[in-house]
Amino acid sequence: MGNENNLALNKNVAVLIGGVGGTKLASGLIKVVAPARLTFIINTGDDFCHLGLKICPDLDTLMYTLAGSVDPDLGWGMAADSTTTLESLEQNYGVEPWFRLGDKDLATHLLRSQLLRQGQSLTAVTGCLARRLGLSARLLPMCDEAMPTIISTAEQGELGFQEYFVKHRWRPVVESIRHQNCEKAAMSPAVSAALEQADIILIAPSNPWLSVAPILAVPGLRAALKRADAPVVAVTPIIAGAAVKGPTAKIMAELGLTVSAAAVAEFYAGVIDGFVNDCRNEPLPAPNLRTVRLDTLMTDTIAKAALARNTLEWIAGWAA
Amino acid sequence: MGNENNLALNKNVAVLIGGVGGTKLASGLIKVVAPARLTFIINTGDDFCHLGLKICPDLDTLMYTLAGSVDPDLGWGMAADSTTTLESLEQNYGVEPWFRLGDKDLATHLLRSQLLRQGQSLTAVTGCLARRLGLSARLLPMCDEAMPTIISTAEQGELGFQEYFVKHRWRPVVESIRHQNCEKAAMSPAVSAALEQADIILIAPSNPWLSVAPILAVPGLRAALKRADAPVVAVTPIIAGAAVKGPTAKIMAELGLTVSAAAVAEFYAGVIDGFVNDCRNEPLPAPNLRTVRLDTLMTDTIAKAALARNTLEWIAGWAA
Repeated sequence: MGNENNLALNKNVAVLIGGVGGTKLASGLIKVVAPARLTFIINTGDDFCHLGLKICPDLDTLMYTLAGSVDPDLGWGMAADSTTTLESLEQNYGVEPWFRLGDKDLATHLLRSQLLRQGQSLTAVTGCLARRLGLSARLLPMCDEAMPTIISTAEQGELGFQEYFVKHRWRPVVESIRHQNCEKAAMSPAVSAALEQADIILIAPSNPWLSVAPILAVPGLRAALKRADAPVVAVTPIIAGAAVKGPTAKIMAELGLTVSAAAVAEFYAGVIDGFVNDCRNEPLPAPNLRTVRLDTLMTDTIAKAALARNTLEWIAGWAA
Repeated sequence: MGNENNLALNKNVAVLIGGVGGTKLASGLIKVVAPARLTFIINTGDDFCHLGLKICPDLDTLMYTLAGSVDPDLGWGMAADSTTTLESLEQNYGVEPWFRLGDKDLATHLLRSQLLRQGQSLTAVTGCLARRLGLSARLLPMCDEAMPTIISTAEQGELGFQEYFVKHRWRPVVESIRHQNCEKAAMSPAVSAALEQADIILIAPSNPWLSVAPILAVPGLRAALKRADAPVVAVTPIIAGAAVKGPTAKIMAELGLTVSAAAVAEFYAGVIDGFVNDCRNEPLPAPNLRTVRLDTLMTDTIAKAALARNTLEWIAGWAA
């Protein structure tokens, strides 16, 4: 396997990625690809303003994960963080603490908000924060414009992403999902270059509807994926008819889909050239798609690196 | 004394006030005047933007003091506060922590900044914060416009107030002090009404040059003091040729003044009708000014209330 491993190591890998689910694969990739050759194109549909601060949950989760400072139990936020400011807001000023902001984590939001107000783009600010945290991998927001994901629900009507996800704990039944302001957004030059220069493009096992769909909705991005020389390969977020964590399976059912890897592959039709299915799933009935079955569960550090290596080696083997 | 005490209790008292020094008298006043009859007109020349947050040091010091949540050792900031966010900014992002912001305290700055960005005036926002902290006394910023105090120094040229005071620890020699943007500022309707309705107007023993001069520089405020029916009385910040705390004496020397209560009374000439001198000082050679000598040191809670009571009783006695 040494040879293919080296092949993978010398590839430029671009990864479309969302929150906690996708970051497991990111943790694996950082072990098997030279960090400087890794570019993450990150969902910012979850971003929102809270207490006057710009919060970018998926950017931060990935940034903290790669920097080794993520809370290992939560999978997001900073490790060993406190919530003194949040408690002060509640106890002194009666502000309801529905969105958890740690004190260490607050440093990120303060600095990002300040740099954005000074006129820097989210791409530039994200690069600045990631470099200060010592990261060599490139972290790119999917676009510089705000493009909030709006969830239309049966019980609560339209909800902003964090209202749906955090305040209402993804309980309301999803009827549809839209990407506000997407007509005013555009693929950034950095994302465009990353897709052009990529040897392999992955779609992480993030929630396809909540985390990846916003990225694909950025004007120009689908066309750039089609135009790219690199193969585009998605990794299944569905294992044995369920999601490992989070609302993927629940949303699929609510949208009238079968909870299966096949339905995810179908959702990515026209975008992907290959699909990494889980070894626990049925083979995909997809004659026009390259597929492989791997262990995608990623229960620990070794399993994360193994899935990253096996996926890249499988794709590198296509050329042979 | 019971009779005069009642007289004082039923008066509307307005107080021009700055930071830590003046708040000692405020703590005393709140014990002897019905809080709803107390209005503080507070220096905002020290305000600045830091990490994208609007920080109002004198407003906060007074607000925390009256709410009983001030750090008793520092005399500012919130009691038993931590600095986790500040440490995260330094350790994770290399941001120099020259201005201490506690985690509990940060709640105030976040909420204030958010409300200001929503378009509320500083007067309205301050009222909102003070009410949420349970205060009945009225806290008014000297004006709604930013009017930063700029210190011209021998060593460092012009410095913003917090740069001078905190970053350089008031070491540079002061050559002059100006009030930036004062031509665009105006006395607020709330300050105007407070001065009109006051029965007694006090100038707290705050630094006359750094803390009170900015208030007097608000266009219209000196004229309003002249027009007011109420007597205007200053309490000396100089005791036995020295300031209790802070740079008052140092600045007086640098500006070529004798470090004396008489020089402070002279600075307030044309504004004040009376002057509370300290019992340790020489009597003032001021024939046109009502003066009294009291113990102004305010070493503890009892002394603070005593000075407040004695001052108000002395003034109430003028009418007799």
